[in-house]
Amino acid sequence: MAPPSSVKSSHVDVLIIGAGPAGLMACNALARAGINVRIIDQRSIPVRVGQADGFQPRTLEVFQSYGLLERVLNEGVQMHIATFFEPDLDGGIKLVNFAPDVTAPSARYPFEILLHQGGIEAVFLDSMRSLGVEVDRPIKPISIQLSGDPAILDDRASYPVRVTLKNLNLPTNEGDTEIVHAKYVIGADGAHSWTRKSLGIVMEGEQADSVWGVVDMLPEEYNFPYSRTKAIIHSNNGACMNIPREDDKVRLYVQLEEKGAINESLGRVDKNKIGEKEILEVAAKTLHPYTIKPPKECEWWTVYRVGQRVASKFSIRERIFIAGDACHTHSPKAGQGMNASMNDTHNLAWKLVHVIRGWANVSLLKTYEFERKKYARDLIEFDKEFAHLFASKPRTAGEHNGVSPEVMLRAFTTFGGFSSGIGVHYDDSAIVNSKHQTYAKGLVAGERVPPQTFIRAADGRPYELQDLLPSDTRFKLLVFAGDISVQDQLEKVRTVADHLFAKGRGLWKCVFPGEQLVSVFDVLTICKTSLRRMIGLIDELPKELRSHWSSVFVDDKDIQGKQGGNGYANFGIKPTGVVVIVRPDGYVGTIVPFDNVKDVEGYFASFMGSCGVPMSKL
Amino acid sequence: MAPPSSVKSSHVDVLIIGAGPAGLMACNALARAGINVRIIDQRSIPVRVGQADGFQPRTLEVFQSYGLLERVLNEGVQMHIATFFEPDLDGGIKLVNFAPDVTAPSARYPFEILLHQGGIEAVFLDSMRSLGVEVDRPIKPISIQLSGDPAILDDRASYPVRVTLKNLNLPTNEGDTEIVHAKYVIGADGAHSWTRKSLGIVMEGEQADSVWGVVDMLPEEYNFPYSRTKAIIHSNNGACMNIPREDDKVRLYVQLEEKGAINESLGRVDKNKIGEKEILEVAAKTLHPYTIKPPKECEWWTVYRVGQRVASKFSIRERIFIAGDACHTHSPKAGQGMNASMNDTHNLAWKLVHVIRGWANVSLLKTYEFERKKYARDLIEFDKEFAHLFASKPRTAGEHNGVSPEVMLRAFTTFGGFSSGIGVHYDDSAIVNSKHQTYAKGLVAGERVPPQTFIRAADGRPYELQDLLPSDTRFKLLVFAGDISVQDQLEKVRTVADHLFAKGRGLWKCVFPGEQLVSVFDVLTICKTSLRRMIGLIDELPKELRSHWSSVFVDDKDIQGKQGGNGYANFGIKPTGVVVIVRPDGYVGTIVPFDNVKDVEGYFASFMGSCGVPMSKL
Repeated sequence: MAPPSSVKSSHVDVLIIGAGPAGLMACNALARAGINVRIIDQRSIPVRVGQADGFQPRTLEVFQSYGLLERVLNEGVQMHIATFFEPDLDGGIKLVNFAPDVTAPSARYPFEILLHQGGIEAVFLDSMRSLGVEVDRPIKPISIQLSGDPAILDDRASYPVRVTLKNLNLPTNEGDTEIVHAKYVIGADGAHSWTRKSLGIVMEGEQADSVWGVVDMLPEEYNFPYSRTKAIIHSNNGACMNIPREDDKVRLYVQLEEKGAINESLGRVDKNKIGEKEILEVAAKTLHPYTIKPPKECEWWTVYRVGQRVASKFSIRERIFIAGDACHTHSPKAGQGMNASMNDTHNLAWKLVHVIRGWANVSLLKTYEFERKKYARDLIEFDKEFAHLFASKPRTAGEHNGVSPEVMLRAFTTFGGFSSGIGVHYDDSAIVNSKHQTYAKGLVAGERVPPQTFIRAADGRPYELQDLLPSDTRFKLLVFAGDISVQDQLEKVRTVADHLFAKGRGLWKCVFPGEQLVSVFDVLTICKTSLRRMIGLIDELPKELRSHWSSVFVDDKDIQGKQGGNGYANFGIKPTGVVVIVRPDGYVGTIVPFDNVKDVEGYFASFMGSCGVPMSKL
Repeated sequence: MAPPSSVKSSHVDVLIIGAGPAGLMACNALARAGINVRIIDQRSIPVRVGQADGFQPRTLEVFQSYGLLERVLNEGVQMHIATFFEPDLDGGIKLVNFAPDVTAPSARYPFEILLHQGGIEAVFLDSMRSLGVEVDRPIKPISIQLSGDPAILDDRASYPVRVTLKNLNLPTNEGDTEIVHAKYVIGADGAHSWTRKSLGIVMEGEQADSVWGVVDMLPEEYNFPYSRTKAIIHSNNGACMNIPREDDKVRLYVQLEEKGAINESLGRVDKNKIGEKEILEVAAKTLHPYTIKPPKECEWWTVYRVGQRVASKFSIRERIFIAGDACHTHSPKAGQGMNASMNDTHNLAWKLVHVIRGWANVSLLKTYEFERKKYARDLIEFDKEFAHLFASKPRTAGEHNGVSPEVMLRAFTTFGGFSSGIGVHYDDSAIVNSKHQTYAKGLVAGERVPPQTFIRAADGRPYELQDLLPSDTRFKLLVFAGDISVQDQLEKVRTVADHLFAKGRGLWKCVFPGEQLVSVFDVLTICKTSLRRMIGLIDELPKELRSHWSSVFVDDKDIQGKQGGNGYANFGIKPTGVVVIVRPDGYVGTIVPFDNVKDVEGYFASFMGSCGVPMSKL
């Protein structure tokens, strides 16, 4: 049925439903790449208080890759220490462990940052504004349809998704309805996702294992000396977690009795039954003998039931995607929610860009669900184990089966790689290939590139490698060229460059005819030659390995002798020469020794090799 | 004579003449402190290209103390390496030394930053704008008069300086003239300072020892591999210095023959006689066998004669001050000019603030000339020695008396502390007292506080000490309290706190009745107690030593075990307890061992002790 002529209609490459962290991360990344993107949200105004608030170390690295970290560091609170409390003999609690909050040894930022969700969203909103994109609000999606016609679905130029929107600011039938035709849709509309439900995607997993209360406040008095740490308190009177917030505020999480909180007929938490007062009562009991005097009114509070569930699928035919809480829900204890959500769309955005630009085929988009669904499942497993420990009785004289402080700390430390986001590992796929892993043991295919200092050859300026890998949608080719002051090695480097860059060869086979390599690939050359020697040798490198003087580095100490020089060793790079392909999201794609240089084009051919061929022919 | 009634008249606390780096540094500092300040400049628009451009390491620290460094780091070019070239046997040049550009071991930022003067000024202009202050331009001062009446000069509330201004945008006699009545005037109007000349202050020193040409450009071709270093080239065909600039630009300095460049009747450089072409010719000869192809038009060039001179005085009765190039001129080789200028007014601004607020007496203002004139003289001595080496023939087979590469490098390294600004030392005065220097050998009275990491006790966050000493016009009291987990030491700390902070005692004697200590002093407590132990002990400290949880630190390793823990050792602090007074400009004022705690008030009494007493009574 054709819409009445009064209904507006528009076309967009990507429509994002929901302007929370997942949606905004996607929108900002797509806008930066110059993609025609639109983002809508039902709320009239952005979030201002409460909600999600914790940045895990990997998320901080991701923000840095978009140039957005400076502000987060300036505005947020750093959490460096985790403390663990157990019951003491006097009916109170005592400190049993004092540990780093972040235990992933390679974290560039070894702490968490707390910043209220409004602050986080403002970082994205301001960045998007500078790119000319604003959130359309209050706009509610009414219906979504995906074409069933294979010819349309396979046609890159088509707009197979049809979404009907209603502008909540306008009266019904007076221009409030709009039909959007989109190439792609991202449903980032939260745990109760309209997109997910409309598409009939089900959540799999346990219904709900616990009820949590959360409160943000500036206490009038609070004599708990560990209030500026993540304090995990396991008492005989309950369990509670204290998190420092901006200024002198704190957040308290408490686990509540399920019975009292649930409205059985709705199957949801009943906020009339349980609220701020009840949360604070549990917290006060748990904190004894320390005391907290809440303010007259807390800044924000909520009570929610947590289901540890993952969506059955993350995509419908790689045209509609769901991301963030729309596809996974879990408990708040490990502070993962917002991080998992933003990393979903960080993973998805560049893939959409490559496909929309016609550089890559649909197999690239399939890796989104492959990578993020496995991650979400791992997250649930982690959450279950951790939540179980948290909810268990502590081990005391009368409770021999309880959880000991040692077990708790060990779990915390063991899970540190995962919970920090640093240890996330994507399995082999179209874009992860671990075939030659032994040539660079410290750069693991499917894991993010760890921090490492290299020295820029021409000016001796030390650089953090991660800062050379911005989220600019380009693949980075790190050419670890060995010591080019040795003539044989220099010859080898020239042969490799010739293979990769000579017209019609290597990388040229991977790009659209007419496209420039530099749009798709950024080449950085890192030599194991001394800084002093290297300056005079830069011009000896093949031109493609020094497109500008700023793209040549050495693995040597800086001129002050204070940093650098350990990159090859830390990464386990063979001095005979290795090319490392880094994905646009900062994850290692594959490692190719010089002797197998053909595997560079092999890597790209699996998803880019057919560029220029219409999707329908794939 | 009273002005005609049509002439405007106004009052201001501080009038600054000249909106170059020295004037802007002063204006921004005063505006931040809430002082009623006005700044005028003759030029219609700010500088856009060329001119001064190098930040020395100490200047970077100073910018950081005002919260202005981030932008400078983002926009500027870093120079890490200095290279030295001497003649080779083929009539060309060869690399003889490859060294750090900055040799001061304690520099927090061990490099120079190059940013064109327009970029530097923009940082100040934007900061000032956020404080509601703009540069008034084009405004030219016409006359300046200082009252000769001692009663007026001694009256804090008086406006003894009368400056007549002419607005160059307005026609004569049509409201173009204004009389400004100022409490204080800063003349920061450059080497040909109108202020200095109007006041009859003479420049002392040699008239002019050399003529320099400078050119900024983006070369069309330039095959000198060391172009991104500071390259000091000493050839048989001339002397030249290469400095990297923004993007791929470079700056070349060349020393020119005096004869050709001077217009004898004017006694100044004649730009009709010598220009861009001549500078580039000398540069090309000096650089041989490397070649440079300049663009059709260079971005900026100038030729100037350098006098190594210092003004006979820096102030008239502590009511009018001159600063920057107005009181010292020297050669460009050591890249000091702008740095010396900005550090003049960084030194002066807080002193003016304290006197204007009525906190300090005129003896504080006298330290401006005392400290900066000695510095300027040292700078001239340094410049002469360095310029001499630079201008001398290199040592070759035929020139046995020439300067050897070793001598050149040694001089460069020896002077590194001075030229970086890090080694600047102010002698004992009203505000520098080295009496108890042995109690903290690493914190030298009269020198800037070096960087050092301490860990914040409540949350374990590592802090750079310099970041705890912002240029907020407050004196910082660093209370190195020792190990307060030892009961005896804790008692000692309590005694000291009682002496300093009990009503009517210690510091209270140093402030105006009715003033709050926190307006004048910021107290930071640094304990030699372990981080883990300390969290629970914060509340044991006297309240004045923990005005907020964020002001207590420990000298221990951070929770990751990666930084911190060496502060007491590096500073040579005795664990028995020491109070270090840091001036508002980041320089150590004095060191007071706990046993001599009375010396804290003694330090302040010498210039603040008579607060509340009218200046006329001093």
